[in-house]
Amino acid sequence: MRAVLLFAHGARDPAWALPFVAIRDAVRSAAPGLRVELSFLELMQPSLPDTAAGLIADGATELTIVPLFMAQGGHLKKDLPVLLDDLRAAHPGLTVHLTSAIGDVPELTRAIADWVVGAATRA
Amino acid sequence: MRAVLLFAHGARDPAWALPFVAIRDAVRSAAPGLRVELSFLELMQPSLPDTAAGLIADGATELTIVPLFMAQGGHLKKDLPVLLDDLRAAHPGLTVHLTSAIGDVPELTRAIADWVVGAATRA
Repeated sequence: MRAVLLFAHGARDPAWALPFVAIRDAVRSAAPGLRVELSFLELMQPSLPDTAAGLIADGATELTIVPLFMAQGGHLKKDLPVLLDDLRAAHPGLTVHLTSAIGDVPELTRAIADWVVGAATRA
Repeated sequence: MRAVLLFAHGARDPAWALPFVAIRDAVRSAAPGLRVELSFLELMQPSLPDTAAGLIADGATELTIVPLFMAQGGHLKKDLPVLLDDLRAAHPGLTVHLTSAIGDVPELTRAIADWVVGAATRA
C-alpha cells in the first residue's frame, strides 16, 4: 500500500494548522482511495515518525513525503534528512519518495502568481 | 499608482529566497503593467518599510501587501500589523490593502492538493 505523509512545521497556535488540514482534506476528497496523513516537525502533534509508524502498521510499504513548506530552509535541508534516515533505518522494507517543497514546484508558484495578480486588481 | 508588495519571512541562506523571486517574476510576466516588489521580515533585504518607501517615492498611492506565508503565525498576527501601522503613520495618504496568506486561499490549497495527488501517483 502506498500512502502520503504531509509534513508541515508546526506552531503553538492551534489555528496555524488549519491551511494544512485543508490541504489534507482536499487531497482526501480528490483521491478517496489514497491514504493521506498530516504530520509536524515541532510544536504540534503528530510527529512524522509516529505518523509513518502508524501508516506502516496499517500496511503502507511506500510513503510519499510532501514538505508543505514554501522554501528550502534548515528544516528541509538538515532536520528532514535526519528524520528520513531514521525512518529508513527503522523500517528497512519501506520505499520513501520525497517530493519538492511547494515553492519549488513551478506550477504552484505560477498559481500563486496568478492569484496575486487577481488580488491586486480586485482588492 | 497601485503597486504590489510581496512579503516573505527571510532566512540566512540566499537560496531560500528563490521561490519568492520566482513568484515575483511570474507576477511581472503575467501583469507587465503592474509594479511588484519583494520584501522580507528578517534575515534578508530589502525590508517591507524600505521597499514601501521606494514604491511611494516612485508614485505609489495604493499598496497591496501579499504575505507569502503558508499559515497565520505570530509573524502575520503580531509583526505585520505593527509594520502596517507604522507604514500608515509614516505615509498618511497611502491606501493599504492586505491580502490573505497563501494557505488561507481556497483556490491555492486546492491547487496544492491537486499537485499532491499527482505527485503521489507519479513519484
